[in-house]
Amino acid sequence: MTQSVIPVNLPQNAYEIALASDSLDRLGAWIKSLHLGHKVMLVSNPTVFGYYGKRAIASLETAGFEVHLHLFNDGEAYKTLDSVAQLYDKALAAGLERNSTFIALGGGVVGDMTGFAAATWLRGIGFIQIPTTLLAMVDASIGGKTGVNHPQGKNLIGAFYQPRLVLIDPTVLQTLPEREFRAGIAEVIKYGVIWDAGLFRQLEDARHLANPSHLSNPLLHEILMRSCQAKAEVVGQDEKEAGLRAILNYGHTIGHAVESLTGYTELLHGEGVAIGMVAASRLAVALNLWSAEDDARQTQVIEKAGLPTRIPEGVEIEAIIAKLQTDKKVKDGRVRFVLPTRIGNATVSDRVDNELIRDTLTQLQPLTVNR
Amino acid sequence: MTQSVIPVNLPQNAYEIALASDSLDRLGAWIKSLHLGHKVMLVSNPTVFGYYGKRAIASLETAGFEVHLHLFNDGEAYKTLDSVAQLYDKALAAGLERNSTFIALGGGVVGDMTGFAAATWLRGIGFIQIPTTLLAMVDASIGGKTGVNHPQGKNLIGAFYQPRLVLIDPTVLQTLPEREFRAGIAEVIKYGVIWDAGLFRQLEDARHLANPSHLSNPLLHEILMRSCQAKAEVVGQDEKEAGLRAILNYGHTIGHAVESLTGYTELLHGEGVAIGMVAASRLAVALNLWSAEDDARQTQVIEKAGLPTRIPEGVEIEAIIAKLQTDKKVKDGRVRFVLPTRIGNATVSDRVDNELIRDTLTQLQPLTVNR
Repeated sequence: MTQSVIPVNLPQNAYEIALASDSLDRLGAWIKSLHLGHKVMLVSNPTVFGYYGKRAIASLETAGFEVHLHLFNDGEAYKTLDSVAQLYDKALAAGLERNSTFIALGGGVVGDMTGFAAATWLRGIGFIQIPTTLLAMVDASIGGKTGVNHPQGKNLIGAFYQPRLVLIDPTVLQTLPEREFRAGIAEVIKYGVIWDAGLFRQLEDARHLANPSHLSNPLLHEILMRSCQAKAEVVGQDEKEAGLRAILNYGHTIGHAVESLTGYTELLHGEGVAIGMVAASRLAVALNLWSAEDDARQTQVIEKAGLPTRIPEGVEIEAIIAKLQTDKKVKDGRVRFVLPTRIGNATVSDRVDNELIRDTLTQLQPLTVNR
Repeated sequence: MTQSVIPVNLPQNAYEIALASDSLDRLGAWIKSLHLGHKVMLVSNPTVFGYYGKRAIASLETAGFEVHLHLFNDGEAYKTLDSVAQLYDKALAAGLERNSTFIALGGGVVGDMTGFAAATWLRGIGFIQIPTTLLAMVDASIGGKTGVNHPQGKNLIGAFYQPRLVLIDPTVLQTLPEREFRAGIAEVIKYGVIWDAGLFRQLEDARHLANPSHLSNPLLHEILMRSCQAKAEVVGQDEKEAGLRAILNYGHTIGHAVESLTGYTELLHGEGVAIGMVAASRLAVALNLWSAEDDARQTQVIEKAGLPTRIPEGVEIEAIIAKLQTDKKVKDGRVRFVLPTRIGNATVSDRVDNELIRDTLTQLQPLTVNR
């Protein structure tokens, strides 16, 4: 059995990411080693709980924990302050104390909300992440970004609050819908491009990337480990996003705009990021920051993962440009882009003007336009 | 003009408490020196804003800030998640950014809610405290405890989030109701008993303590400075209440129970603390932790401040004992009390049993019982 333990070295809140097949069944023992209180609240949604809830509870009870349970409704639409308030009520009824622990078993929505509740109940109680989607494993569960949506914007309400442990069991990906797996691969590709050239080469060398059942266990383990390591290293150097951490937004600028313009229903987040990475890569070529060869290599990997590389039909280029102006990262009307410089390295640039964006996006229009 | 700057030495979030008469008129210049963004949101309630709002805004605008305004409804009943959500809406409409600042101008309710909003909007934006009650000046505004009430308990929802600056202008106490001033003096006496013997002697030597207009400006300044210093020192050693900070709960155990049993309407918080300090002091005498002489000295100062020293009529001793069992600090059914050992020093004890509490509280029954 391969097991990796990846440290997240934060000055005040260091913790570990534990990665191993079937680690879900050793959850109780892992938590016990952290010397937290004996009351835990397992938080999930009906779908994920249906698959893995019993195993998690069995492991916790065997280790002697008093287990309480809360299920959020499934889906981004329920990522609200009201949902968190329901978890507060449960925490009160269960008599959770400061040394009690919330355990998030699910994807990014469950993790973000549970983390926010943990950050704010009794001014902060224990928190553990068990991500069950690829996206949550390599991105959302690491680094302490927690929160909920405001009716007018995603993740506007939240806190930086680090988990005490991230437990990743790759075998749970077997029940993840393929399209969601591919969306997670987009973030893996991102780490390859901006941080870890070795990871990128592994993705290039892989025969298949679009389906977890076509990946060998060692390769999947390696991909997860290196992605978690990339995230942990960046966050370890810049916990509160004062500088370096911004490079994690590679592909997210155009990506967010396209997601938002399609009402967050047509594209998964990772699909938006894939399109955004293609766009950012072209911008970087135009600015002579990186080569057309590297751009082509990236596109090839994205296509192998079955991810989109063009703007969805019906999305106007001018609408994207207008949307970019509302981005959090705009400074003095100029959008700041994360651009690759070589495989494994990226920089933040404010040299991108609307003219260049327009030219670049024109190249990425849907092929059907030319039919 | 006397001016004191008291450092709060926290490893990651150090800041200063600035204490000076009429410092409210120099608010803008103070904030400017912190190099925060140019957008600020002044948060207050109608009463306090009526007294001091114009001066605060004038100072901010003179310094070049873009000033937005939000008023919470006045009173503890509005210290809710819903109120905070209204402030989120205002922050969105004002286009606050990560380097923008919430400025709390008011007492503990305004400060706690504004701090919680600052902790959770965009995962944390700038925050400045301008406390306008004595209680907020010496206690609530320092140390980063922020939050709101849950329908079933006070301050259950919250976060540790430090301000960037606490600005104290003692002249604003002139508009504070006398009874609220006295309630604040209870916390000042607390610091004298548990931390600063010199402060306690000054309170003993003072002719008057019950009314701000009877205190000389230098004495008031000294009292404020030493109290803030005590709080800053304790918090500096234990930001998240892992150990030492618990001594700040001196008087709060019985105090909270009595406040709660009178429905939070009959007693001000500081009045509950005064009763709680008398009770804890008697427990300490009974346990031979400190002397009857020191107990008498404390009672004398509390009485000089016009604060209550006996249990309110109609509150049953057994009801208090039952209420204590729901205290956050109960461990294995045993209440943990902060008890004084000598003037300027306190310890946490779990040696107090219900029998002893019963005996002690019997001595503190209202005198009318014996009429």
